[in-house]
Amino acid sequence: MSKLKKTIHVFAPASSANLGSGFDVFGLAIDGPGDYVRMERTTTGKVRICSIKGDGGRLSKVPEQNTAGVALMAFLSAIDERSGMDVYLQKKLPLGSGLGSSAASAVAAVFAANELLGRPMNKRQLVRWAAEGERVASGSVHADNIAPSMLGGITLVRSLEEEDVLSLPVPKRLHVIVVHPHVEVKTSDARKVLPTKILLKTAIQQWSNTASLVAACYNNDLALFGRSMEDLVAEPARRVLLPYYDSIKAAAIQVGALGCSISGAGPSILAITDNTKQADAIAASMKRIYKHHRIGCDIYNTKVDTKGARVIKPR
Amino acid sequence: MSKLKKTIHVFAPASSANLGSGFDVFGLAIDGPGDYVRMERTTTGKVRICSIKGDGGRLSKVPEQNTAGVALMAFLSAIDERSGMDVYLQKKLPLGSGLGSSAASAVAAVFAANELLGRPMNKRQLVRWAAEGERVASGSVHADNIAPSMLGGITLVRSLEEEDVLSLPVPKRLHVIVVHPHVEVKTSDARKVLPTKILLKTAIQQWSNTASLVAACYNNDLALFGRSMEDLVAEPARRVLLPYYDSIKAAAIQVGALGCSISGAGPSILAITDNTKQADAIAASMKRIYKHHRIGCDIYNTKVDTKGARVIKPR
Repeated sequence: MSKLKKTIHVFAPASSANLGSGFDVFGLAIDGPGDYVRMERTTTGKVRICSIKGDGGRLSKVPEQNTAGVALMAFLSAIDERSGMDVYLQKKLPLGSGLGSSAASAVAAVFAANELLGRPMNKRQLVRWAAEGERVASGSVHADNIAPSMLGGITLVRSLEEEDVLSLPVPKRLHVIVVHPHVEVKTSDARKVLPTKILLKTAIQQWSNTASLVAACYNNDLALFGRSMEDLVAEPARRVLLPYYDSIKAAAIQVGALGCSISGAGPSILAITDNTKQADAIAASMKRIYKHHRIGCDIYNTKVDTKGARVIKPR
Repeated sequence: MSKLKKTIHVFAPASSANLGSGFDVFGLAIDGPGDYVRMERTTTGKVRICSIKGDGGRLSKVPEQNTAGVALMAFLSAIDERSGMDVYLQKKLPLGSGLGSSAASAVAAVFAANELLGRPMNKRQLVRWAAEGERVASGSVHADNIAPSMLGGITLVRSLEEEDVLSLPVPKRLHVIVVHPHVEVKTSDARKVLPTKILLKTAIQQWSNTASLVAACYNNDLALFGRSMEDLVAEPARRVLLPYYDSIKAAAIQVGALGCSISGAGPSILAITDNTKQADAIAASMKRIYKHHRIGCDIYNTKVDTKGARVIKPR
């Protein structure tokens, strides 16, 4: 134990869940935004959230009410670890945005503890424990944001078992444009508008798309990737919650987006293309529409983060 | 035109649709059984079904009422071809068995005509026209048997557009065991028992499986392939139509099948494994159960046909 570090700094990237058709199963990590955690191993035997910056005072420091805290306690309990952990969380991505904010915090915390303790688990095994934090954020355990934030790249979660947390090849020229309009959509509201049942024929089309999206990743076929993002389930139900969604999507497609859909539960929107020029045009067209309607927005015109959670130098 | 052949012999393999989770979208070609067509180009301007062998007199020779006839007429019309075609069909696989019998005939006919006419289309383009024959057989256009019979291998049909008819890599050690019990299940009955709507949460699990099955093909991961065959939609509805289905599946799994599900609309059952020894054990265990219940069956203990429809020497 004496060789192990006592303090560590880590980063976990933002992520975009669903990729249209793959509701609750696909996700990708976004290069740029993310959460930072400094963690210190202690002898208190307790998880303490010592400080949270960047959340506007909205997140609880009570570990049992905080996604990072819940995930961290679940992980430590799983490995029967008695050390305490002091957590200093710095959020660099907005809450409730559809960018996997709660997931990034939980991933950063669990990954940091695993590093401090000499890596008792591999990253794929950590996904299950980080996902425990999502119970606090959304009321159920989903790993569609956890997996990409932890592993980087594009992920497919069949189950929380290590061997069912799959990484898909990232198409080489994949550009992602994520726009986050400054409007609020609660994940719980976004869940409420979903139908309990869907038509079988709709479901069949949807799973032909999820299957095709995987093939598109392996074949490096971004046109197929874009077509396969078509979402017949969540988008039709949720688009009404997102101001000007139809206009934004139409504008993105018109200037060359290969696919466009809601990022996670929204309000962020994800578009994809295969070149920088079109990525710039898509970003500009989205921004123009929100500006016209006097809605502020942040735009991430970027690529997929392929590293996932990682140790960084002290900031 | 004078260089083109006047007569051709072709073969199109049997196929197994769905592969469990991929209802209506996945299919694989089965090495061994299939249909044979001899076709002669004529100056009659008409499609004629001159003879059908191996169907027990059950199929119509009226082209408009025969899957091969309908598909062939649709294809000839699509290319604005005025030649007549005389079709001699020899069926070497049972009707209504869940082995793509009607699809193999339609594929063989369309493929043969395309060859006789100097290949105006490629195989992937032919899928759409061969699928027209399925209107006669099942009342709607499906290509989940057409695509594998035409192309060989494992296929994923997102739409009937050429670029959406996808071939997946065939895992190297994939053994398929297909048992055809001598009981009748009408495709129309098998369709009737399906629910019109399914729970969203069920659909999500199903599309995590279809997506994972594609990843399994690319990763040559037969354990994942088997797990991903899990079907939460058609199997629960259709198992009651198939005598002793639960026993057969349990027996196959017990002796090492990695996955087992209904082949197409049944009554045939498909199991997979990664080695010859277990394939033999699976075949034997299935046969034993049917024998115990005095139900005859044919067993195809084989691999995936990777060639699809092809020209053969005169038989």
